[in-house]
Amino acid sequence: MNSLSASTQDLLRERYGSLDALPPLRPTPVLDTLLAHRSVRAFSDQPVDDETVHTLVAAGQSASTSSNLQVWSVVAIRDPERKARLSQLAKGQAHVANCPVLLLWLADLSRLETLGAQQNMPVEGTDFLEFFLMGSVDAALAAQNAAIAAESLGLGLTFIGGMRDHPAEVAAELGLPPKVFAVFGMTVGYPDPAKPASIKPRLPLQTVLHHEQYDASQLREHVDQYNETMETFYKKEGMTPRGNWERHSLKRASGPEALTGRDVLKSVLRKLGFPLR
Amino acid sequence: MNSLSASTQDLLRERYGSLDALPPLRPTPVLDTLLAHRSVRAFSDQPVDDETVHTLVAAGQSASTSSNLQVWSVVAIRDPERKARLSQLAKGQAHVANCPVLLLWLADLSRLETLGAQQNMPVEGTDFLEFFLMGSVDAALAAQNAAIAAESLGLGLTFIGGMRDHPAEVAAELGLPPKVFAVFGMTVGYPDPAKPASIKPRLPLQTVLHHEQYDASQLREHVDQYNETMETFYKKEGMTPRGNWERHSLKRASGPEALTGRDVLKSVLRKLGFPLR
Repeated sequence: MNSLSASTQDLLRERYGSLDALPPLRPTPVLDTLLAHRSVRAFSDQPVDDETVHTLVAAGQSASTSSNLQVWSVVAIRDPERKARLSQLAKGQAHVANCPVLLLWLADLSRLETLGAQQNMPVEGTDFLEFFLMGSVDAALAAQNAAIAAESLGLGLTFIGGMRDHPAEVAAELGLPPKVFAVFGMTVGYPDPAKPASIKPRLPLQTVLHHEQYDASQLREHVDQYNETMETFYKKEGMTPRGNWERHSLKRASGPEALTGRDVLKSVLRKLGFPLR
Repeated sequence: MNSLSASTQDLLRERYGSLDALPPLRPTPVLDTLLAHRSVRAFSDQPVDDETVHTLVAAGQSASTSSNLQVWSVVAIRDPERKARLSQLAKGQAHVANCPVLLLWLADLSRLETLGAQQNMPVEGTDFLEFFLMGSVDAALAAQNAAIAAESLGLGLTFIGGMRDHPAEVAAELGLPPKVFAVFGMTVGYPDPAKPASIKPRLPLQTVLHHEQYDASQLREHVDQYNETMETFYKKEGMTPRGNWERHSLKRASGPEALTGRDVLKSVLRKLGFPLR
């Protein structure tokens, strides 16, 4: 770790709870920007201007996209009433209503559908699960690039998976044509300095990195260590979650009733024009 | 555009073919790194060391992850024979065999399955399409952060969607447990200076950015403009594609026979342990 700057080491300590078990890294000019990510849910009144939104989208468009098909779109929402309605569709999360700009990242197969109709060419491929996945991955790659651009400008953000709690209502609110799906939202604004957000620790690096083949032989030790790291984090944050990270995560995956409406995602997607063949 | 540096303006010119129709942007310290992305398929002999791979993974772990569940993993592959076999599973793409490191990005619900079994807690939620999507999006967000870290270190890369052409064979090669799926690969290495890669132009920014609601009213003009931009790019690159971008893309979406095996993705995923309820 000797070659890493003190600030990078501090960020890594927050990210992994400790540097003890972390394998050696290499410094890069943008690493601190990446490591410093935290979910920001409290925003100042400072507006986010159009130039900034354009910059995020240009960053997003610079990400890779499968076969250069660019099967994604993004909707920028500033209208307070629309944000308030979308907030209600996402468990009433206050920052969805209160953020200066809400970005909705879309898997967008409609563009190909429209062009196919104009050129009298079939686009049956878009009926397949593969194309739905392609659009979702394209949207995610673009959104992550936008997130980095935003954070480099001093903005904060949080991804809003809750936009999948009521996908049909979200689609109606955005006027989405068939074969367009809001994969997730992103609340964007300048962080409220009075309510700073913390970096959340992650699993040990070795848990997610495998060499040559998948290897979960050390999973138990890693998760025991991570449960402790998160316990320390919860205490520091004054949080009192029910159970440790492991139990909390398992509850989230326990069954359809824990999916906050997303257990019917497949049937709703069919109504939105995705047969998912 | 006046506030943007000459280098940023040059990159934007390559990205959009021209600056004429581009709305104003705001300079950021990392914007050039993001804009400069190009798919690199020709690598020098310079090896990619472990420190570098760790750095990419730490960057990946710093990306957002749904409910902090971290339902993704990555496998780093250096073994020439394994890379050669994986290359054969992806239409024989030479750079999959020739890259110093191949990263395979996984949607990984197996960790929760294992922990659930250990804790005697049900994890029925992982049977749902929602969790498959969550893992795929988590993997994509992490991979894009890793891509930015890699490019900031002078590395080049290409995403390999072709890893979905034969998902069961890829899973067997990597020894994946049930409920783990290789969403895409990423070839990583130092670019061969003798074979420089170009920035590929994208659709006009206004095509993918919508305000308040989805709006495709200018799609035809935008695509006409983009077809021309790509025509100029193909000529510059000495490429002779069959038809313009629009026809080429529509052919890619024409039907199951154009999906290079991915038309059976859903049934293969079921065999890999994803019921996709």
